[in-house]
Amino acid sequence: MDIFFDRKSVRKYTNEEVKDEDLNYILRSAMSAPTAKNTRCYSFIVIKDKTTHAEIAKRHEAAQMILQAPLAILVVGDESLAYNSYFPQDCSAATENILLAAVAKGYGAVWCGVYSNEKRQKALEEFFKLPPNIRAFSLVIIGKSADDTPAKNGWDETKIKYERWQ
Amino acid sequence: MDIFFDRKSVRKYTNEEVKDEDLNYILRSAMSAPTAKNTRCYSFIVIKDKTTHAEIAKRHEAAQMILQAPLAILVVGDESLAYNSYFPQDCSAATENILLAAVAKGYGAVWCGVYSNEKRQKALEEFFKLPPNIRAFSLVIIGKSADDTPAKNGWDETKIKYERWQ
Repeated sequence: MDIFFDRKSVRKYTNEEVKDEDLNYILRSAMSAPTAKNTRCYSFIVIKDKTTHAEIAKRHEAAQMILQAPLAILVVGDESLAYNSYFPQDCSAATENILLAAVAKGYGAVWCGVYSNEKRQKALEEFFKLPPNIRAFSLVIIGKSADDTPAKNGWDETKIKYERWQ
Repeated sequence: MDIFFDRKSVRKYTNEEVKDEDLNYILRSAMSAPTAKNTRCYSFIVIKDKTTHAEIAKRHEAAQMILQAPLAILVVGDESLAYNSYFPQDCSAATENILLAAVAKGYGAVWCGVYSNEKRQKALEEFFKLPPNIRAFSLVIIGKSADDTPAKNGWDETKIKYERWQ
């Protein structure tokens, strides 16, 4: 197994729960992601409650798979704490770590974009009663994969340049 | 070894080169990162030439460690190709994969921010003669680590919330 090459966006899950020890690993991985000037401006809302999942589905039209998943993590962050313009980078690195750590522990996950989609942000920030300086950034849905299609091969030689653009 | 917990920002390197097979692994990992609506808007400029490293150092005040490193990868992307506002997310996920894949292959790396620092972007976009739709996003400097301080423990219980913000 290779966590980079085997990762794919998983949108179908079995009924299996995510074990607490695996969730801890995933969260620790997220918190180990780099942030500009080490502000560590991110936080993570762990959401297992099915009623909350249903409320999220009403507020994020592209996150309907949450209705079948055992777990979601809402990555949020303090935009005012982030160094310069690097808020999206900081929260994205943490989100990517969540996806990869989920694969490392035998799960599948999908990144549902929130920031900076004004409608989704507003709906989720209101629902979760986030303080004014905290932005809803991304929603990661996690479970045991029920999708057995192999991950796509990402290799594309045309995306590599040497020394200069051309 | 755990690539998430052992990753740290490495700014000192030995003279050892990055092997071609490892560079290929790192680039393939980068290209395996998710992008919103699968636009795959990123590209990667591989830079080994020391003259170019020196030119980059003149244009990015926080990237002086490039002068001692064997390799840099400039992550660039087509902002016009990205889906909605997810350009920083797409390029950040690819950048984070580069950092982690470098650790997986026994190297150390550091993420130097470029986007959206207007001064750095302009200087690098001009130097690399990037087409008008291509943005310089991040600069990753990679080499064998000459820094033996352990990675910080990222765990911080206060960053985890359950079900709601409070």
